[in-house]
Amino acid sequence: MAKIDAVSPFAPAAYPALPLVRGVRLAGGAAGVRYKGRDDVMLAEIAPGSAIAGVFTRSRTRAAPVLWCEAAIAARRTGAPAGPASPASPAGPIVFIANSGNANAFTGANGAAGARRMAEAAAKAVVASTGVIGEPLPAERIEAAVGAIAATLAPGAWEKATRAIMTTDTFPKAAGRTLTLDGVEMRIAGFAKGSGMIAPDMATMLAFVFTDAAVAQPLLQRLLSAATERSFNAITVDSDTSTSDTLLLAATGASGSAPIADEADPRLPAFRDALEAVLLELAHLVVKDGEGATKFVAVTVTGAESDAAARRIGLSIANSPLVKTAFAGEDPNWGRIVAAVGKAGEAADRDRLSIRFGDILVAENGWVAPGYREADGAAYMKNAELAVGVDVGVGSGAATVWTCDLTHAYIAINADYRS
Amino acid sequence: MAKIDAVSPFAPAAYPALPLVRGVRLAGGAAGVRYKGRDDVMLAEIAPGSAIAGVFTRSRTRAAPVLWCEAAIAARRTGAPAGPASPASPAGPIVFIANSGNANAFTGANGAAGARRMAEAAAKAVVASTGVIGEPLPAERIEAAVGAIAATLAPGAWEKATRAIMTTDTFPKAAGRTLTLDGVEMRIAGFAKGSGMIAPDMATMLAFVFTDAAVAQPLLQRLLSAATERSFNAITVDSDTSTSDTLLLAATGASGSAPIADEADPRLPAFRDALEAVLLELAHLVVKDGEGATKFVAVTVTGAESDAAARRIGLSIANSPLVKTAFAGEDPNWGRIVAAVGKAGEAADRDRLSIRFGDILVAENGWVAPGYREADGAAYMKNAELAVGVDVGVGSGAATVWTCDLTHAYIAINADYRS
Repeated sequence: MAKIDAVSPFAPAAYPALPLVRGVRLAGGAAGVRYKGRDDVMLAEIAPGSAIAGVFTRSRTRAAPVLWCEAAIAARRTGAPAGPASPASPAGPIVFIANSGNANAFTGANGAAGARRMAEAAAKAVVASTGVIGEPLPAERIEAAVGAIAATLAPGAWEKATRAIMTTDTFPKAAGRTLTLDGVEMRIAGFAKGSGMIAPDMATMLAFVFTDAAVAQPLLQRLLSAATERSFNAITVDSDTSTSDTLLLAATGASGSAPIADEADPRLPAFRDALEAVLLELAHLVVKDGEGATKFVAVTVTGAESDAAARRIGLSIANSPLVKTAFAGEDPNWGRIVAAVGKAGEAADRDRLSIRFGDILVAENGWVAPGYREADGAAYMKNAELAVGVDVGVGSGAATVWTCDLTHAYIAINADYRS
Repeated sequence: MAKIDAVSPFAPAAYPALPLVRGVRLAGGAAGVRYKGRDDVMLAEIAPGSAIAGVFTRSRTRAAPVLWCEAAIAARRTGAPAGPASPASPAGPIVFIANSGNANAFTGANGAAGARRMAEAAAKAVVASTGVIGEPLPAERIEAAVGAIAATLAPGAWEKATRAIMTTDTFPKAAGRTLTLDGVEMRIAGFAKGSGMIAPDMATMLAFVFTDAAVAQPLLQRLLSAATERSFNAITVDSDTSTSDTLLLAATGASGSAPIADEADPRLPAFRDALEAVLLELAHLVVKDGEGATKFVAVTVTGAESDAAARRIGLSIANSPLVKTAFAGEDPNWGRIVAAVGKAGEAADRDRLSIRFGDILVAENGWVAPGYREADGAAYMKNAELAVGVDVGVGSGAATVWTCDLTHAYIAINADYRS
């Protein structure tokens, strides 16, 4: 029997040293949302004047907090009058409040009321909830606890905040970067929870990222949306999109930098790279903590009709239960990869297809490569981190996606025990 | 550890009594394609003048036998001159030849040659292969054995033929119906192999169905295509489409019936119903023998924008690893069903959604149903056959799909042991 309490083999030895993002204070504390004796409410207080951007699940059955966040960000961006879903002023302070233990999903009008109560408890906050779907949120417990938690808000309380949003996570996930542009040091740091898009029950991927760079809101949203495509939207654990996925990015401007306001700003490429690096590191940590994961696999598809086609083929491979069980079994089973390419529905030239495991050429021109020895493939599969390369031979589209293996522990976590 | 040699709990006690389809002789025998001591070549000899229809995998990396079959059926239908891919005459006899142990998939030009050699060995046959992907087909073994196997061709040798195409199947799958129309008795019977669309490695769903009704080829193809949508294309075990899925239907006309040639024939509805019943029974048997399956689940979606939308929502539920592990754990986890509805990408009204387990109303109007007790849901989940009903509250589209649970045995079969 798989040990479901086992920590991921990819867990870092310690919580990382993150830079101090100026203009942000963090806290985590216990409200008893579902369990006693563990922190389950996270607060992030963000300086007045900050720009806020967000990316959310594309699910058609989105949870109440997701709808709340979208409305709050829109109201702040457009300067709409204060209302139940918006802070008093677009330039005012804003608080991120998130709870674990209850996703406040599929809870109808009561769900909206619960999200509003959380927001008001934290002074018109942006809200995220993660945990069980379909049970009423005990907002009164959060209301009762939020004052004491807010009293502990402190710069750099990254680990406390990160641990307050963990559910099935076996380790806290955080990443940061520091860069100096035009003599001004800027910091980017954030944290995430989730074992992929895989756990709408225990629920969901949440990520909160902060920078003290000054970035205009429309540009911040574009940067976040683009970087998400190449990071959080390029990972999969089991193909199950949640009702609650939420990624929020706050730019406080407290570094004192001149605002980055448009695409032509010469500082933009370096800032974008640093932001993407933080998001990608967080996204990889989510996959590495995928339920039951023992392998971390990068799937790179080249030669597709377009980048989008390459991405769809990559996700078809990365989501295939047969491919993922082969990784679990350390089986260099490239026939299953051929089948997963085929089912993606994108153009692929069967007679020009090539497959690589790391640097090993496994198949080319529609058949096993002449120099390939199965013993080499089997030895490669024993690595904890794997790279699969597939060229489908029809164009120049390329994409990389990341996934993990499908193991007995995944079944144990999701079938053998009731949450 | 799961017992991977365990027979499906849904295995029938005995091979079914099938009606004798006139104009068809069957045989199975051993050619040693991959393993010694087991039958691995199936022959079906079909009377001259028969109409042949086929439905094939939509994979973009289809195996050589699939391409061969399509060409052979097209040549026979159009009366194209005899060629490497067609029998000498559209009205001539035709043989279905199928082997297990090697799928002849992703084998390039050599694959096409192997399929041709198999076809020529059986007098211009229609060819299907199932088994490992990416290894050259030992066509010479089949050529050497086919004469002795053909000598055993006999009417009613259903079980011998069925067993010759089994791979990971734990029981032989067969179904038949007899109907009398205008005083003429007509028979329909067939057999299938496969544990769903799940095993492109050990490879794939094959089905061969025969009737002694006389049906014109264009109509036969339309009937088969439509019935496939509601049977074989409405089942899923693990979402992995294979490179080799093949369903062939032969109508010999040997019942002596007047031909059914157009949609207005008054006999058509009854014939169509009987054909669909055979295909649906075979499709259900494939799911019930899904690798590691312990639950057989019908997912019915109503209230969707269209039947196609209902089907996509149904497949999203039926393919969700989290839903399928909940079935395995006998967990009435309707929150995972909400999430699977959401990720389908089709319109659904979260606040009008209802969910039923059998006759038990679990959720309605965006929240848990007032009268629902979790103990009732948990008790229902202990059944081996489950019915999940979901109404998404936006229209009148409806569809039913069938699936099984995702268990430790699935992982054991596909990860723990090399084939």
